[in-house]
Amino acid sequence: MKHINIIGGGLAGSLMAVLLAQKGYQVRVYERRPDMRKVQLDGGRSINLALSVRGIHALEEAGLKEEVMELAIPMPGRMIHHRDGSLEFQPYSNDPSNYINSVSRAELNKRLMTRSENLAKVDYFFNCRCLGMDFETGEAEMLNTETGEKFKLDGETTIAADGAFSAVRYDMQKTERFNFSQDFLTHGYKELEIPSAKGGGFQMEKNALHIWPRDEYMMIALPNLDGSFTCTLFFPFDGEDSFNSMQTKDQVKAFFDKQFPDAVAMMPTLLDDYFENPTGSLVTVRCFPWAYQDKVALMGDACHAVVPFFGQGMNAAFEDCSELSKCIDENKGDWAKIFDQYQHARKANSDAIADMAIENYTEMRDHVNDAEFVFQKQVEHHLENHTDSYKSRYEMVSFSRIPYAEAYRRGKLNKEILKKITAGIEKVEEIDMAKAEKIIKEVMG
Amino acid sequence: MKHINIIGGGLAGSLMAVLLAQKGYQVRVYERRPDMRKVQLDGGRSINLALSVRGIHALEEAGLKEEVMELAIPMPGRMIHHRDGSLEFQPYSNDPSNYINSVSRAELNKRLMTRSENLAKVDYFFNCRCLGMDFETGEAEMLNTETGEKFKLDGETTIAADGAFSAVRYDMQKTERFNFSQDFLTHGYKELEIPSAKGGGFQMEKNALHIWPRDEYMMIALPNLDGSFTCTLFFPFDGEDSFNSMQTKDQVKAFFDKQFPDAVAMMPTLLDDYFENPTGSLVTVRCFPWAYQDKVALMGDACHAVVPFFGQGMNAAFEDCSELSKCIDENKGDWAKIFDQYQHARKANSDAIADMAIENYTEMRDHVNDAEFVFQKQVEHHLENHTDSYKSRYEMVSFSRIPYAEAYRRGKLNKEILKKITAGIEKVEEIDMAKAEKIIKEVMG
Repeated sequence: MKHINIIGGGLAGSLMAVLLAQKGYQVRVYERRPDMRKVQLDGGRSINLALSVRGIHALEEAGLKEEVMELAIPMPGRMIHHRDGSLEFQPYSNDPSNYINSVSRAELNKRLMTRSENLAKVDYFFNCRCLGMDFETGEAEMLNTETGEKFKLDGETTIAADGAFSAVRYDMQKTERFNFSQDFLTHGYKELEIPSAKGGGFQMEKNALHIWPRDEYMMIALPNLDGSFTCTLFFPFDGEDSFNSMQTKDQVKAFFDKQFPDAVAMMPTLLDDYFENPTGSLVTVRCFPWAYQDKVALMGDACHAVVPFFGQGMNAAFEDCSELSKCIDENKGDWAKIFDQYQHARKANSDAIADMAIENYTEMRDHVNDAEFVFQKQVEHHLENHTDSYKSRYEMVSFSRIPYAEAYRRGKLNKEILKKITAGIEKVEEIDMAKAEKIIKEVMG
Repeated sequence: MKHINIIGGGLAGSLMAVLLAQKGYQVRVYERRPDMRKVQLDGGRSINLALSVRGIHALEEAGLKEEVMELAIPMPGRMIHHRDGSLEFQPYSNDPSNYINSVSRAELNKRLMTRSENLAKVDYFFNCRCLGMDFETGEAEMLNTETGEKFKLDGETTIAADGAFSAVRYDMQKTERFNFSQDFLTHGYKELEIPSAKGGGFQMEKNALHIWPRDEYMMIALPNLDGSFTCTLFFPFDGEDSFNSMQTKDQVKAFFDKQFPDAVAMMPTLLDDYFENPTGSLVTVRCFPWAYQDKVALMGDACHAVVPFFGQGMNAAFEDCSELSKCIDENKGDWAKIFDQYQHARKANSDAIADMAIENYTEMRDHVNDAEFVFQKQVEHHLENHTDSYKSRYEMVSFSRIPYAEAYRRGKLNKEILKKITAGIEKVEEIDMAKAEKIIKEVMG
């Protein structure tokens, strides 16, 4: 049977390798970095992953759900750390069995690699960087960074899962009428750490996504299996409070003492982390087409990198795998058709999650502080509890497989519904459910 | 005195060379193509230029206005060719001394080259293609396409005027937080020709921009000095009536006979032109920043390619030259500051003209057919005639140097004003001017 090249052995590439091998394809995965199971890679720029229903579904299709869930820590809600030191838990869902899952990117990646290699149909080639692609022939030019040797991949069928700065996409940009954009936020991020408690265990609530919302910026923390939390400061590059304005240890210490005093007490390596870890940037990538004839298709961040504020980057990439797998089953061997059906099925959805992820930054760093926001969330949960027809946008995105574009569309209608239902009331108990149901029906059409 | 490299000897690069030489700089211009004054370049993809106030102003600053205007044919309005064969002249301005100018791109480019070479401070290097730029050093990598020799430009101060598919910008894309987009319309274009009349002279009205608006597509024609017209068909790539659907001479003939019968009678080489000339694509490019330190700045299409429907691509590029010239004068020798001031002065304006150019396609191919549109234009001209405070968007863009962003903003207010003033009336004479002035004042704030 035909073999398939996958460029990029990250999360999407590795999951796709498993799905393809299970269909009987011979798969060769080319990964730029060394084997992370043998070599400790440079850290300091991973935002922890939040695995949710879409990603779990794709893992289940690959028979990997159970072993991946061993790595997961449930987070059923946000723990808000207010300026005054008080804590407030805001559940994500009305249904306590709905939660997102904190997962280590590296550990998940290692499991996917090992699992796909065990299938005997998958070979990994590490230290192999893609330099570009010739779109006439479909051949990718590769560089073995250990030996310095250059080589070409045959141009039969390639899946490019080579990330937000994809070398394949970079050359695809020169093909005819290729639409493309890369947009950076004016904010960046810095990874920091809250270690486990002395003698083990967690220094804060384990089962929550912690947020220190400070209007113009925020810090978050996600739990790790070893009792530590990976913290991320999302912060402007420039301006009064910014990465550029904080250049000395004294400045950083004073800023954290003032803004995040409860966290500082748990961060013994704060200053070292701050100055040693790189400042990451936050990019949104959009493009179309995603595929070129039967030769190559882009996947995951390579065609739709999103900012991390909805926790959906990996989930969206895994949904790509799911969709491509379905298209392969439906169009046996006709790769031009497979790729074309795949790209059209996914494009609008990836645009929608990109937009929602940007919007969610304002929600996380600012709105969660707001009494009005908290009240609206209560109303949403109440409606979900007492009707069959209402679902919050967060619920649709994180706890269902309703297409992102549909979740985005319905989310806009939700705003209208909530405005009408909450007009003139101050407590959830005051909602007239008969009237509410009528409003929902009317607005949703 | 310092020398400056210009990559690209097109319109913007050549005008900038003149402006720099006049300030005393030594200028080296590197042009990808052969010298068009000696070698006939491949034609068939030029849309004629419409030179208007902004471009003329920049030429005047360079002392070139008079000799360029020798090449110009005034077009004070649009000549609409209706489906029924009738003609309708729609003036652009209320003021008959306002007109745009049809100019041949090649002839204009040649004059700018000759004029800048005559300054003795400017050297042109032809057949020199830029392959990319090293942003550490600012050095551009160049290829002499005649000799095959590669060489580097020193990285002191470079202006990249190398067009919509700029090689410099392509590498700039990899610098930190570089925002970029390229968006193609789903329509393309094809150059066609109406030759001069037998024995010389024009086959149609010389002083007009001719349009055959057909809702979903259009043909236009601009006059040339030799009595011919350069025609351009703007047409969908795909769909029922499209470049893809018209593959045979019979199909093309039948289509033109039906849609543009009056033009067909004047187009003896229609079928040859259609099948020999390439189908061009229509791209909008946006990016930011435009400059990297004191090393390089982008200019013209390289940083803001626009679609041609407002006739402002060259005018906007010449306005870049004007602005950069001003920034040089104001910040003697501090090139980081010069480039930074230049990019911030131009960015919002280039975004505005990009948007307006896309909007204008719908106006040209569709709205000009519409009685309501014609009435609104009459009202606009009436208001311009009888008040000091109203200017149509077309007037601001084409016949003033009001910044594009301001013209775009005021154009939106104009819509509101027109809606209020024309409510309930059917003739220009019915306008209550006292009331109209009050509305204008209110809406414009």
